[in-house]
Amino acid sequence: MPLATRPRAVVLDVNETLSDLAPLGPAFEEEGAPAHLAPLWFASVLRDGFGLSLAGAPRPFVEVAAGALRPLLAAAGVEDLDGAGQRVLDALGTLPVRADVPEGLQALAAAGLRVVTLTNGAVATTDALLRRGAARPHVDLLLSVEDAGAWKPDRRAYEHAARATRLAPQDLLLVAVHPWDVDGAARAGLRTAWLDRAGTPYPSHATLPDLVARDLLDLAGQLA
Amino acid sequence: MPLATRPRAVVLDVNETLSDLAPLGPAFEEEGAPAHLAPLWFASVLRDGFGLSLAGAPRPFVEVAAGALRPLLAAAGVEDLDGAGQRVLDALGTLPVRADVPEGLQALAAAGLRVVTLTNGAVATTDALLRRGAARPHVDLLLSVEDAGAWKPDRRAYEHAARATRLAPQDLLLVAVHPWDVDGAARAGLRTAWLDRAGTPYPSHATLPDLVARDLLDLAGQLA
Repeated sequence: MPLATRPRAVVLDVNETLSDLAPLGPAFEEEGAPAHLAPLWFASVLRDGFGLSLAGAPRPFVEVAAGALRPLLAAAGVEDLDGAGQRVLDALGTLPVRADVPEGLQALAAAGLRVVTLTNGAVATTDALLRRGAARPHVDLLLSVEDAGAWKPDRRAYEHAARATRLAPQDLLLVAVHPWDVDGAARAGLRTAWLDRAGTPYPSHATLPDLVARDLLDLAGQLA
Repeated sequence: MPLATRPRAVVLDVNETLSDLAPLGPAFEEEGAPAHLAPLWFASVLRDGFGLSLAGAPRPFVEVAAGALRPLLAAAGVEDLDGAGQRVLDALGTLPVRADVPEGLQALAAAGLRVVTLTNGAVATTDALLRRGAARPHVDLLLSVEDAGAWKPDRRAYEHAARATRLAPQDLLLVAVHPWDVDGAARAGLRTAWLDRAGTPYPSHATLPDLVARDLLDLAGQLA
């Protein structure tokens, strides 16, 4: 493996890294809005959440998710904004895990690594997601930036993970599908792995990851 | 007007506030990608640009715009990523101004206000945009966050405008279509106006604007 020393813990992003956002498209369609609003919504939530952190006023993920949803639904001509908004939020809160997650987390734990999650969302949402996917027993510790004072990719979010695990940043391997998360973690001194499930180019403005893996099983194999 | 005292300068956001993003949809279509990627791209550029600022490493807008474009084009099946990417970036760099901009900026200047722009992009792009729309003579000063150390909505971006105009933050009125910009400016002590051209709900997670206007002419009327 290309890392000089072995990490002691993997710190996994949650939204889209562990969860499968595919059901969000049909959730929009059921409200009479186009399915392609789902990725726009998710990007808008991160845009606004990062913006609030950048302005020094981070807010809980679900609040930003609700706030960013209504203008999109309204622009799509949805009339029952309260009802439709709640149903789409319910879909966000009941997403399945990706297919590689249960076995992948088990393999990471079996390789002797501590398995930790670090989400811009809520710990309870991560907990419910992992339980739905029968993957909760493989995770040691669930963390949220709500205890860090800023959303990822602010370095304080990653330092929170180091504090909570009592490990040095360089002993942590941040694992995410999102280049902005890889970038922020690298700048905070963590080592990084990018999950390239989609096979798309890595953007040139983000710090390159130390490892690239197709999925969590591939990553566990590289770390074993 | 609902402001207790009159602002001395209006500080206008540029992308989407002064420019019309509508030609971006057809630019994607000409490359064989769906038009609905245009708003996703724009949200992704802000997401990644805010993320880099949050991580302490702001990058120029055009660099982030190029970086965020390639994964979207690749996922849409576009093969000539370099050529297609350059043509979409060219479209971004040659957008028209919105219909209300020339007369609206003239009316703001005629009302005795200094007219300043503050963009997350480059000053040269703003200058070219305003010249294309025959609106350059109505603008006093063109500012970019590239001289501020962080993108809006970091407070340093708005403080840069106060320094450059030699005015106090409360003498500035930030004008934008984007709630995240209104929110950041309000937190930095500026007064704010939201241009509600689309008629969609204002998101609950952002600080409310001091003024709401349909367009720049309506705003100039409220400030006259």
